[in-house]
Amino acid sequence: MSEKIEGIAASAGIAIAKTFILRNPDLSFERGTVDDVAAEKAKFNDALEVSKKELNAIKETAEKELGADKAEVFAAHLMFLSDPEFVGAITSKIEQEKLNAASALHDVSTFFIQTFESMSDNAYMRERAADVRDVSKRLLAHVLGVSFTSPASITEETVIIAEDLTPSDTAQLNRKYVKGFATNIGGRTSHSAIMSRSMEIPAVVGTQTIMDQAKDGELAIVDGLTGLVILNPSAEEVAEYKSKAAAYKEQQEEWKKLVHETTKTSDEAHVILGANIGNPGDVTGVVNNGGEAVGLYRTEFLYMGRDKLPTEDEQFDAYKEVLEKMEGKPVVIRTLDIGGDKKLKYLPLPEEMNPFLGFRAIRLCLERQDIFRTQLRALLRASVFGKLRIMFPMIATINELREAKKILFEEKDKLVAAGTEVSDDLQVGMMMEIPAAAVEADRFAKEADFFSIGTNDLIQYTMAADRMNQHVSYLYQPCNPAILRLVSKIIDAAHAEGHWAGMCGEMAGDATAIPLLLALGLDEFSMSATSILPARSQLLKLSKAELAKHKETFLNMDTAEEVLDYVKTQMI
Amino acid sequence: MSEKIEGIAASAGIAIAKTFILRNPDLSFERGTVDDVAAEKAKFNDALEVSKKELNAIKETAEKELGADKAEVFAAHLMFLSDPEFVGAITSKIEQEKLNAASALHDVSTFFIQTFESMSDNAYMRERAADVRDVSKRLLAHVLGVSFTSPASITEETVIIAEDLTPSDTAQLNRKYVKGFATNIGGRTSHSAIMSRSMEIPAVVGTQTIMDQAKDGELAIVDGLTGLVILNPSAEEVAEYKSKAAAYKEQQEEWKKLVHETTKTSDEAHVILGANIGNPGDVTGVVNNGGEAVGLYRTEFLYMGRDKLPTEDEQFDAYKEVLEKMEGKPVVIRTLDIGGDKKLKYLPLPEEMNPFLGFRAIRLCLERQDIFRTQLRALLRASVFGKLRIMFPMIATINELREAKKILFEEKDKLVAAGTEVSDDLQVGMMMEIPAAAVEADRFAKEADFFSIGTNDLIQYTMAADRMNQHVSYLYQPCNPAILRLVSKIIDAAHAEGHWAGMCGEMAGDATAIPLLLALGLDEFSMSATSILPARSQLLKLSKAELAKHKETFLNMDTAEEVLDYVKTQMI
Repeated sequence: MSEKIEGIAASAGIAIAKTFILRNPDLSFERGTVDDVAAEKAKFNDALEVSKKELNAIKETAEKELGADKAEVFAAHLMFLSDPEFVGAITSKIEQEKLNAASALHDVSTFFIQTFESMSDNAYMRERAADVRDVSKRLLAHVLGVSFTSPASITEETVIIAEDLTPSDTAQLNRKYVKGFATNIGGRTSHSAIMSRSMEIPAVVGTQTIMDQAKDGELAIVDGLTGLVILNPSAEEVAEYKSKAAAYKEQQEEWKKLVHETTKTSDEAHVILGANIGNPGDVTGVVNNGGEAVGLYRTEFLYMGRDKLPTEDEQFDAYKEVLEKMEGKPVVIRTLDIGGDKKLKYLPLPEEMNPFLGFRAIRLCLERQDIFRTQLRALLRASVFGKLRIMFPMIATINELREAKKILFEEKDKLVAAGTEVSDDLQVGMMMEIPAAAVEADRFAKEADFFSIGTNDLIQYTMAADRMNQHVSYLYQPCNPAILRLVSKIIDAAHAEGHWAGMCGEMAGDATAIPLLLALGLDEFSMSATSILPARSQLLKLSKAELAKHKETFLNMDTAEEVLDYVKTQMI
Repeated sequence: MSEKIEGIAASAGIAIAKTFILRNPDLSFERGTVDDVAAEKAKFNDALEVSKKELNAIKETAEKELGADKAEVFAAHLMFLSDPEFVGAITSKIEQEKLNAASALHDVSTFFIQTFESMSDNAYMRERAADVRDVSKRLLAHVLGVSFTSPASITEETVIIAEDLTPSDTAQLNRKYVKGFATNIGGRTSHSAIMSRSMEIPAVVGTQTIMDQAKDGELAIVDGLTGLVILNPSAEEVAEYKSKAAAYKEQQEEWKKLVHETTKTSDEAHVILGANIGNPGDVTGVVNNGGEAVGLYRTEFLYMGRDKLPTEDEQFDAYKEVLEKMEGKPVVIRTLDIGGDKKLKYLPLPEEMNPFLGFRAIRLCLERQDIFRTQLRALLRASVFGKLRIMFPMIATINELREAKKILFEEKDKLVAAGTEVSDDLQVGMMMEIPAAAVEADRFAKEADFFSIGTNDLIQYTMAADRMNQHVSYLYQPCNPAILRLVSKIIDAAHAEGHWAGMCGEMAGDATAIPLLLALGLDEFSMSATSILPARSQLLKLSKAELAKHKETFLNMDTAEEVLDYVKTQMI
């Protein structure tokens, strides 16, 4: 009998293969003291060196396969293994209390984990606790001489079943053999889910029970399109899903044919499909997926996973690389959006009770002008290598926009006076992600060259609901009429001044939202690179003029549910 | 030579008197052990009993003079002195380590304070740390036999100078003698500032340096109107401020004459001036200040400072008392708005990364229907004793409003079926404090009987800036055009359906905002009771029709600064 288990669809696609259950290794040990302290210290140091070597290798693979931002977590692990506070505490426990290495490591790591976890309302600290847990497990396995079931050891086609996949696990997945995975825990935005999408491995997460239900080596189907796992499927089920997989593959092949097409609706309206990227390495994926622009380059990643601020030249190189690789297509680069849940260890920020309503992005840059001016100079110098659009994040008031522009043009004048060439085709725009800015869009349109709507934050603030907080996640409603009205106002305001309006939040790549956004007149849709071709395929079949006729109707509905129902029945 | 020191104007009025410097007592002690453990334990227990007795007395005075909500902090102090974890840890330190009582108390209180303070991004916990500090200081003084400079000992007219005033300090201030105070630390919303306003004592806080500059017993002027302190003033300065004080007193006398007037503008438009209250005892102040309504009764205080939920009957009594005391004038009672920064110890809520964007108010009530239905029944039963308006907080979607109303009417039907009388003149409305609701005000107006605009939250969410966070407090702009547009939209939406719109945030009592709000057509202004008469005095001189002519102009300005400048030069 087959068993069906429902979970959360984390990454599209269908996998059919034998299961490989990734179990936690047996890391139990005898607590106790030793006589030969020197030998115990040597044992610990050996384990430390082996762990560092492994992590360096994993980090290199991750950088190559997944990009620098995804590899950053291993730099953090490595830094922990070189942290004198952590390593020193363990060594001194061995020396002074004559504890065996496993006990000393256990005591110290438990202390660090508990300290981080006790700051229980700080998501950043909770992540640090997970890092310590991950790195200590590796270290303990080497101290005990226990072999790690490494996903890297998989050499036949499998579906991985696990409690959860740690960053080190996912970084070692070989796409050739790992056809899909299913986990007990996690949601659509958990680490493993994000990784599965960027690696294009079908995945279902958050099944709660699959680790109890699955047997090693039995056949399994992972349907990442609907969020279903079937263990021990019947022949009919295998046949059904093989045909579904074939249909999905065919659809993907169809999509691939659209790589070089421009995105024109059935009534010949042209919209731009762009991609959101985190670092220059991501541009390859944008080009391969037929991106017509980089709609959002998040420059935070240049500042992360390092010990000090990036220099002007380092930044210049990165911006130039992206502009050049895009070969004259528009590139929207957002200035530093740090703060909130994104922190830098070399830039201590105040602890805040509500970091999402705090000192971040442009608010920080206007105060730390040293950081801001360096970035602006790098951007201005890079501007001659392509079609650059500079974008300021978290603008709430006209004064902030004016101040940011003033600083930009001061730096431009200085560069020009010093004989540096700067593009004269530079656009300067802003994120639309704060309700105040959306309400004042008509005023902002007189002073910004373009708007890009950041729906993740705009929805969060407009609904007053933290999208990371599961207790209020039901309020994260992209199609709530309030959100659609603000989006509509923003687009109309841009058009009234002859400007363009884009969107760079998750909503822009959502198949249900796309007809609504086209109806509202959105000019540019920026999404993950892998969503571009499905979106293009959808847009080619839609008529902008026809959809626009529905605008007044859906803007005057009462609830998100009504709107969703209307789109699905009347507009797709 | 006189010395002028600038600070923050915390409470209006002018005081001229000799200084009384409230210095911290000398609580230094010798760390050490004792031989007679039993005697040391007895000494500690005596100090404990004396402290409890003092705190009980302070709590009683505070309840009488300041109201139950303000006295709640002393209940917390008392609970701490009965907490077995705290008291037990001290006793066992005396027993087991033979420490003297002062050292044992110091060690344990330091541990508690540090634990609370280490949760450094949690304002609630920081306040708990302040409580432990306050109560431990009292306890230590009694252990050491050091006498406390108590503000209660003041028996001549003085101006108190202090580093800060603790809750126990302010509760002991005798209004007869304490003419004003000035402190080194604090802001407009710090505890001491709030207390000074509710006690109507002129105060300047946050001077940074006054404790270093003031000498005991010298003459001082505290100008709580502008935030200035003058030490050792010249005869001319004393004369000048005496005449300013006389003018202010005269103005207050003028205001008092308006107690029984209705609030009609110069062109005969009638607006309602109401008060925000926290408990039934506050109604006396509303009546004495000529309030025409209770515009907001925050029912949270019924749930705070106790061990378990209030019963239906306890709530019924409170609601009935307020309705009866208001003698048929409208009373808007807001259902429980707990969560965010307001917590109850018997109702554990999830720790949240961004509590202001979290699980609170109606979101919590719709899930904890047991709590919600009890409150609704108490409200419905009380409705026959006056003019009740029930208001739901933090409504973001139409579905939430529908669900809350459905539950209310279910309870009403049950009561009616059981033969309980319920008013048939009941209005059911909602707070307008979430941007999504403001943007959809036209839709909400079809299903709510009235709106009350909660500007504190509405501004915070619309600007995406935590108003408690000093790094972004510059974004807390009541007169930002975005806020005024939302307010205008809300008022127009209510009027289009024949409903009324009020405002119960701090903005409603602000002299600069009042002409703008009148121009936008606001029907009801609800503020602290002490602001009602100045507001009435101002409104009597304004012409609603004339001001309305400015509406399109100020709604289309770019910045809050422009609007403020315009109001001050053109509209007052």
